[in-house]
Amino acid sequence: MSELLVTVERGQLIESIHRGDIAIVNAQGEVISSVGDIEKVVFARSSMKPLQTIPIIETGAADHYQFDDGDLALACASHNGEKQHTERAASILSRLDLEVAHLKCGMHPPRRQEAFEELIKSGGNVTPIHNNCSGKHSGMLATAQHMNESVDDYYKIDHPVQQRILTVISELTDVPMEDIQIGIDGCGVPVHGIPLRNLALGFARMADPSELEESRQQSIRRVTTAMMNAPEMVGGTSRFCTDFMKHMGGKMFGKVGAEGVYCVGVPKAGIGIAVKIEDGNARATSAVIMEILSQMDLIDEQEAGALESYHYPPLLNARKELVGMLKPVFSIYETAR
Amino acid sequence: MSELLVTVERGQLIESIHRGDIAIVNAQGEVISSVGDIEKVVFARSSMKPLQTIPIIETGAADHYQFDDGDLALACASHNGEKQHTERAASILSRLDLEVAHLKCGMHPPRRQEAFEELIKSGGNVTPIHNNCSGKHSGMLATAQHMNESVDDYYKIDHPVQQRILTVISELTDVPMEDIQIGIDGCGVPVHGIPLRNLALGFARMADPSELEESRQQSIRRVTTAMMNAPEMVGGTSRFCTDFMKHMGGKMFGKVGAEGVYCVGVPKAGIGIAVKIEDGNARATSAVIMEILSQMDLIDEQEAGALESYHYPPLLNARKELVGMLKPVFSIYETAR
Repeated sequence: MSELLVTVERGQLIESIHRGDIAIVNAQGEVISSVGDIEKVVFARSSMKPLQTIPIIETGAADHYQFDDGDLALACASHNGEKQHTERAASILSRLDLEVAHLKCGMHPPRRQEAFEELIKSGGNVTPIHNNCSGKHSGMLATAQHMNESVDDYYKIDHPVQQRILTVISELTDVPMEDIQIGIDGCGVPVHGIPLRNLALGFARMADPSELEESRQQSIRRVTTAMMNAPEMVGGTSRFCTDFMKHMGGKMFGKVGAEGVYCVGVPKAGIGIAVKIEDGNARATSAVIMEILSQMDLIDEQEAGALESYHYPPLLNARKELVGMLKPVFSIYETAR
Repeated sequence: MSELLVTVERGQLIESIHRGDIAIVNAQGEVISSVGDIEKVVFARSSMKPLQTIPIIETGAADHYQFDDGDLALACASHNGEKQHTERAASILSRLDLEVAHLKCGMHPPRRQEAFEELIKSGGNVTPIHNNCSGKHSGMLATAQHMNESVDDYYKIDHPVQQRILTVISELTDVPMEDIQIGIDGCGVPVHGIPLRNLALGFARMADPSELEESRQQSIRRVTTAMMNAPEMVGGTSRFCTDFMKHMGGKMFGKVGAEGVYCVGVPKAGIGIAVKIEDGNARATSAVIMEILSQMDLIDEQEAGALESYHYPPLLNARKELVGMLKPVFSIYETAR
């Protein structure tokens, strides 16, 4: 069963709590530490994007369409829909000779309120390019276009784009393709259900691909380097993914997934970390990740200081006064296997 | 401990779950049914607003400032910030001879995205009147103004406005004033921490005040009638509070509170229902309330049909396709005391 991970405190009272599961695994598949049930099958959601970006490189599409770090990072992104994101997605589409209408992600307003406000003020309309997944979809279109495949139904599980992604996920997480549970994501493409332990393994191999074949090593390093070099593309202003990678300065990479998923890869330690909040609430994930890294001594004082508001997320009222706080309350050692 | 109440299903997988507690109590304080831990102290948050509205009537402010059903319902509201809400709040303030600047609730964009968009398009600015609690604050100002008290610090716990509210809450919930735990709400005023059982008792007495003194009975009936007569003021377009009371046509009243609280009063049955989702996620509350009413046979087929999307909230992707669903999975009878 999931364990208590985070309390939400207001005044003197614990107002709410978040339970969840934590898997910390190395590239050889050994469980370094765990909390809760790491065999639980979870949808990785957008935390799978870094793995999904690998085929853009391995099909040759990335080179053909001159993807730089920012483009690859945007393919890994759940972005804010800020101008820096939408302009880059538009640039990728134009290199593919495709239009915004080719994006099958559907639309929602930019995640960042200021970006939405700016869009409306300038007389613009919300389009699929503002969808937080427009970079991933542009990347999927890049592989389809480059491989001369249909660009109209790339979101369907039988399309070669999705089958290539499924193959990479299976290879990196050690879950046979037929055992990967498929659902549909908020942006209309398949999501992948695998045990939390295997999700951590996937990130461990992204962090330490040294035992994989040479070309796979190279494509993985290109993805993770891109995320760490262009963290502003992975999320945006005031987003944990972005601020985390910015302040960790190339030491590790992290990616959020919907419904309370967060994964981190730590190259130096050769480990992958996968977290799932049982109730799906994203607000608890940064606190859990920061606490794990802190307990494992993988983060120094300066980094911890810069990221403190993600470690202990404050509750502010509409007058910007501090009225409560989220606090991680678990130990990865007490419950370690 | 909290019990499993709702599953969040995507494809064939349970992606997330919500645990929580349920108290169903009559006006005599007898527990009719319960799930989980009903002695747990919870902040009632905005579900307390109907009780907090009583002093507006009992001080004479409601009559003096000609509060109609819509005004009283707005005082009970966590509203969408639609024009219907902001114009009514402005009307109350003007009757008090006060300004928007007197509202100490702080500001946030209108909850309803369309209302925010409309505001920006029309060149307007977000002000405290768009805060979902602006009706409650206007009501608090009404009592302060009517009683010739300071209108500048009405949000402080020592102010007579807050002390009157505390007294009413204590009387209706049977929790001694000194045992009510105080925190600060998202809008800057005190929130009240009491056992879930007592919160249900408060709503039971709002539903069946027949054993209370005559003037209290009258003021309670005026509040609950106002909510049921003007449900569009209590929430707004596509909000559960509003749609629920609209479709229940005067049979019951309900009010959401932040962090996964929901309370319902059922006059015919003389009961109050209080629900707290352990993790604070509001998305599970309507499913729980609808399931309770359904299990208690308090809702007919037509009402159930009209409110089905609140009983089994669908998960839609950005292309508006159905990709999952929330499902209540508890029984109030199996776990009844």
